[in-house]
Amino acid sequence: MDLCDREKNTNVRISLPAVCFVWQIAMIILFGVFIRYNEESSPFWIEHRKANNISSDIENDFYFRYPSFQDVHVMIFVGFGFLMTFLKRYSFGGVGFNFLIAAFGLQWALLMQGWFHSLDYSDGKIKIGVENLINADFCVAGCLIAYGAVLGKVSPVQLMVLTLFGITLFAVEEYIILNLIHARDAGGSMVIHTFGGYYGLSISWMLYRPNLSQSNRLQGSVYHSDVFAMIGTLFLWMFWPSFNSAITDHGDGQHRAAINTYLALASTVLTTVAISSLFQKHGKLDMVHIQNSTLAGGVAVGTAAEFMLMPYGSLIVGFCCGIISTLGYIYITPFMEKHLKIQDTCGIHNLHAMPGVIGGVVGAITAAAASEAVYGHEGLINTFDFEDAFKNMTPTRQGGHQAAGLCVAICFGVGGGIIVGCILRLPIWGDPADDNCFDDEPYWEVRDKKKQKKQDSHYHGIHWSYGKLTLYHSIHY
Amino acid sequence: MDLCDREKNTNVRISLPAVCFVWQIAMIILFGVFIRYNEESSPFWIEHRKANNISSDIENDFYFRYPSFQDVHVMIFVGFGFLMTFLKRYSFGGVGFNFLIAAFGLQWALLMQGWFHSLDYSDGKIKIGVENLINADFCVAGCLIAYGAVLGKVSPVQLMVLTLFGITLFAVEEYIILNLIHARDAGGSMVIHTFGGYYGLSISWMLYRPNLSQSNRLQGSVYHSDVFAMIGTLFLWMFWPSFNSAITDHGDGQHRAAINTYLALASTVLTTVAISSLFQKHGKLDMVHIQNSTLAGGVAVGTAAEFMLMPYGSLIVGFCCGIISTLGYIYITPFMEKHLKIQDTCGIHNLHAMPGVIGGVVGAITAAAASEAVYGHEGLINTFDFEDAFKNMTPTRQGGHQAAGLCVAICFGVGGGIIVGCILRLPIWGDPADDNCFDDEPYWEVRDKKKQKKQDSHYHGIHWSYGKLTLYHSIHY
Amino acid sequence: MDLCDREKNTNVRISLPAVCFVWQIAMIILFGVFIRYNEESSPFWIEHRKANNISSDIENDFYFRYPSFQDVHVMIFVGFGFLMTFLKRYSFGGVGFNFLIAAFGLQWALLMQGWFHSLDYSDGKIKIGVENLINADFCVAGCLIAYGAVLGKVSPVQLMVLTLFGITLFAVEEYIILNLIHARDAGGSMVIHTFGGYYGLSISWMLYRPNLSQSNRLQGSVYHSDVFAMIGTLFLWMFWPSFNSAITDHGDGQHRAAINTYLALASTVLTTVAISSLFQKHGKLDMVHIQNSTLAGGVAVGTAAEFMLMPYGSLIVGFCCGIISTLGYIYITPFMEKHLKIQDTCGIHNLHAMPGVIGGVVGAITAAAASEAVYGHEGLINTFDFEDAFKNMTPTRQGGHQAAGLCVAICFGVGGGIIVGCILRLPIWGDPADDNCFDDEPYWEVRDKKKQKKQDSHYHGIHWSYGKLTLYHSIHY
Repeated sequence: MDLCDREKNTNVRISLPAVCFVWQIAMIILFGVFIRYNEESSPFWIEHRKANNISSDIENDFYFRYPSFQDVHVMIFVGFGFLMTFLKRYSFGGVGFNFLIAAFGLQWALLMQGWFHSLDYSDGKIKIGVENLINADFCVAGCLIAYGAVLGKVSPVQLMVLTLFGITLFAVEEYIILNLIHARDAGGSMVIHTFGGYYGLSISWMLYRPNLSQSNRLQGSVYHSDVFAMIGTLFLWMFWPSFNSAITDHGDGQHRAAINTYLALASTVLTTVAISSLFQKHGKLDMVHIQNSTLAGGVAVGTAAEFMLMPYGSLIVGFCCGIISTLGYIYITPFMEKHLKIQDTCGIHNLHAMPGVIGGVVGAITAAAASEAVYGHEGLINTFDFEDAFKNMTPTRQGGHQAAGLCVAICFGVGGGIIVGCILRLPIWGDPADDNCFDDEPYWEVRDKKKQKKQDSHYHGIHWSYGKLTLYHSIHY
Repeated sequence: MDLCDREKNTNVRISLPAVCFVWQIAMIILFGVFIRYNEESSPFWIEHRKANNISSDIENDFYFRYPSFQDVHVMIFVGFGFLMTFLKRYSFGGVGFNFLIAAFGLQWALLMQGWFHSLDYSDGKIKIGVENLINADFCVAGCLIAYGAVLGKVSPVQLMVLTLFGITLFAVEEYIILNLIHARDAGGSMVIHTFGGYYGLSISWMLYRPNLSQSNRLQGSVYHSDVFAMIGTLFLWMFWPSFNSAITDHGDGQHRAAINTYLALASTVLTTVAISSLFQKHGKLDMVHIQNSTLAGGVAVGTAAEFMLMPYGSLIVGFCCGIISTLGYIYITPFMEKHLKIQDTCGIHNLHAMPGVIGGVVGAITAAAASEAVYGHEGLINTFDFEDAFKNMTPTRQGGHQAAGLCVAICFGVGGGIIVGCILRLPIWGDPADDNCFDDEPYWEVRDKKKQKKQDSHYHGIHWSYGKLTLYHSIHY
Repeated sequence: MDLCDREKNTNVRISLPAVCFVWQIAMIILFGVFIRYNEESSPFWIEHRKANNISSDIENDFYFRYPSFQDVHVMIFVGFGFLMTFLKRYSFGGVGFNFLIAAFGLQWALLMQGWFHSLDYSDGKIKIGVENLINADFCVAGCLIAYGAVLGKVSPVQLMVLTLFGITLFAVEEYIILNLIHARDAGGSMVIHTFGGYYGLSISWMLYRPNLSQSNRLQGSVYHSDVFAMIGTLFLWMFWPSFNSAITDHGDGQHRAAINTYLALASTVLTTVAISSLFQKHGKLDMVHIQNSTLAGGVAVGTAAEFMLMPYGSLIVGFCCGIISTLGYIYITPFMEKHLKIQDTCGIHNLHAMPGVIGGVVGAITAAAASEAVYGHEGLINTFDFEDAFKNMTPTRQGGHQAAGLCVAICFGVGGGIIVGCILRLPIWGDPADDNCFDDEPYWEVRDKKKQKKQDSHYHGIHWSYGKLTLYHSIHY
């Protein structure tokens, strides 16, 4: 088994270009048929402005949302990308494959989400503007979360497949949760994080590698790869207020969502540090916790950020999530690997799945507790969108709908992950052998690979004894 | 002494979690009692808009200030954080403790500054919006500057104490300078940089370690740690125009502050390079200067950025500060260490304290020189806020008030630093021995520490002679 | 030759400070004579607002453009800077000299562009606001592109000269292309990328080093330097929509330019990955392609981004550019070095020059195909600025003007580059010997240089055989 495994073919010279070309050409055709500019990004904006009595160009949605869009964009590409560079010899794969699948995913997301949300029935075209770009980035985030669970254990072709299905599933569950169930989910605690987390964990479960732990020489960080990962952590942490407020209501909605997220994240940092220190020998901090658990508060206020969670409420949510997420890294991840056969490279269960569920619950409670006394008459209607078909909703019922939305997200994540995991087990995708996991070599030209290997073995040699080192080298070369 | 020192207990397993938990819980309680959303971030914004005849959501302060806020946020966490990763084995501490104390500090700052500036006397609550978030980040900056002086020589618990008192002192001196003295200080040359600089230097003076220079094997950079530090430098440099314009007046105030800062910083880069090359053997540039002195111009236009400093005025300020700051690194820092017993790891005296004082002086002169010819009638009143109790202020008197503000900042910095330094000398905070300074090992799980140590000693061995290397190794293991 | 070359004097201790001081003082004097705030950044904004019936401060151009400005600023300093850190021992020079010449260039650009575009004839002063800052950054980009071609082979003094002339030439060709020829070029495919690309290539041709390939031990990357370069790549990639939309028309113009660029870049990533994998042994991806070619789509939609290129059109442009640019790295760069004597360190021909020309052509076609049916009556006039002297322009003729603009950009690039290249060949600039190319040592204090050299030679030694290692070392020390 091990031997045969070592001979696995990781050559993706045909399959990867084929997938990229075919899918990109398909995108071009579908965009040609379906996608057009909306009235705020087309030259007819001038006429639109006059017809709608909009006094200034500054009221174009672009100026409300573009700064937040760019922040979200940084989170997707630098945030997620660099967070995954922490492995000592998988930094290219972490940041590079993240780049590839995000660039593909956002195109497919524009189409999938467009059909559900931005279809102009008068001419059958999807009309896009800056809000669609943000939503496409959100949609991609779900797949990048899933990538975190299988980081280092899959081929780029598998990642493309994971993304294709992930985006498709995302668009459907999002439509069900937001439009049919009428749950609110500004920052995507349920729609993005819960779905993405369980989707990734289920796939990782289906792709379980029983002998992986024996060859995990590379499954760890070195000093500088941990510093690189902090770039990802900090950009995610800093721009999370933009993430949670990017598509909320103009005015107080965006304002409040940003404040709540800012506070929740601040609180998470302190409890993460506290637990990390408390559970480590000699009270030393663990970079894994600092890199990941400090972000859990942002996930967990995703749903409720636009509600009247209150500043202290945000702090409480962050407080709890820092504790739970860090304990997750200490106890739950090893437990899942040993007993549930789920190998979760980045610990997305602790950073996304669990905090996402907490976020859904917090959202349901906050919604159910809403009242006109706190929100005002118009504020309540605006915040929860109690209009049209949902004119007669009450906050209490809204709370129930929120909970229903959470269940849908979990079901889609687990169910979709199992199906896609089955597909990814087919022996045609060029995935790496256990021995090649967490290593950039199979898929990247690594210029200093010989030198590096030598360095590794060299240190190994020294580590045992200086005598053995000579021996080791003379055997090796 | 040295031996006993080596046995210093750096275990913070009890104290660090205790401080984090207790202070975070205190924050939650105080936020619950005091902090609420203001009218622009609460659902009552709709009513407020209508009542005040505000025609569009885009006039919510959020849209005026949020992009600047995010830039400032990046400066605090990535800018300051990565600037402090330059030490070869203290990058985790540089970026990680910066993260911790900033996350704590901004909560405490929202409270402290809120009591002074945003208290709604009708219900006794602090009402917060995006401007408060910016101010909290500013307040934190003062403490991060102070951290720069003691980088690598204190424990995280000491840093939490430094921050708690630092924020408190900051809020008081800020209230005195801005409200009582009615000085203007948009970019905080006095309030942030002068205060923070002298606060840190005084603490470092109190914590003087006479034998540190003997064990400063780790007090230097390696190639890649210098590149990491450039990330910090550049994000600080690029976003400084946002820093200085973040809380200035809507419209021309923000616009002018950004332009002035942009120009001052550009000018500083050239003179820093010139001096660095001129004073080095063979004309080689020193990364320490490029990383730090290039930022001095941004500090020094902090106060005057919103005034009519004129574009050439900004260039002149930047020109002088690049020279002074770089000379500071070459002459003053070694002098202070040797003769004044002030060990200033990051050279904050040259980057913050001195340029901050210059900024205060430039601000006083520019204010005193103001006239209606240059500002216009309404412009003068708006820019200097000559309203209400200060209706009869003249520019000349304003110049005097600016100078008074500068003195207050220095006094608070020096005085506060000495008191807090005394507190930090108590032998209960788990600070490192001289031998463990500038090393991540005491407070962080460093996975490749054995390998690294080996590498270090290995190279040392080689450095002497190849024969000795064998000996060294055989002794070592 | 080689020996004499080795003795080249790289001491810039007099020349570099002299250039920096003289030019910075010149800037101060010229700024003093010429540069003032415009009406939106001066305190007379209040009067201006009232006189022009502008209802709110939010309509100050600052709020339309400042977020885009900051993104462009990040591209200039972190994007270009870190993209050039990929060489194993030239990271200081890559990011540091980029910093220096950008900081100088933007001051000179404010003057040069100001004389052509922002001169107030009533008082002979240049009036600047946020749009001028963006344009100055754009202007600098042209010189940073040129730096890419000569990276590692020139002294900082040469770079300052390259920048001085580059900015001057840029301002003239920009005036000819945009004002005299009336071509449109929002994202600068022609004005910035084509000009900058050919300017750099011509200089590199003039500075051809026939023996360079023999000493290119350092002309490659190491693992972590490639990860650093990805920081540059990603910030360029993410913020390119801001680059192309920064100075387009308020409202739909900025909105559409951002969407088009976002899409083109996404498409480029997929075809870059496909070609990189297809043309490499074993289908492995090459970091050089991922770092550079993924950006070609952004270059190529620069001109047409504000037009009705349509979403699928953007995808097609990106699709083609990913292919062409990657093939350029595989075939054209080696060909140019071998047969045309052009040594292009960063491959700017594939990333800027070629895609820039494609962008110019795409722009001409898109402009020629414009019609009132697609743009609307007012939209057509606004988008192409068919006003005043150009009231009678037709889209077809506009297409011709666009093509003419492209020719001017190429001519200025090639011609200017040859002239400046001649100047840079003078033996007074302190350029490095072939042996010292791609090495930070001649111009930077590198603290770990001895250690590093030892490491290099050490590994070399091991690479041959363990026996030889001993020999090598004993010879070396």
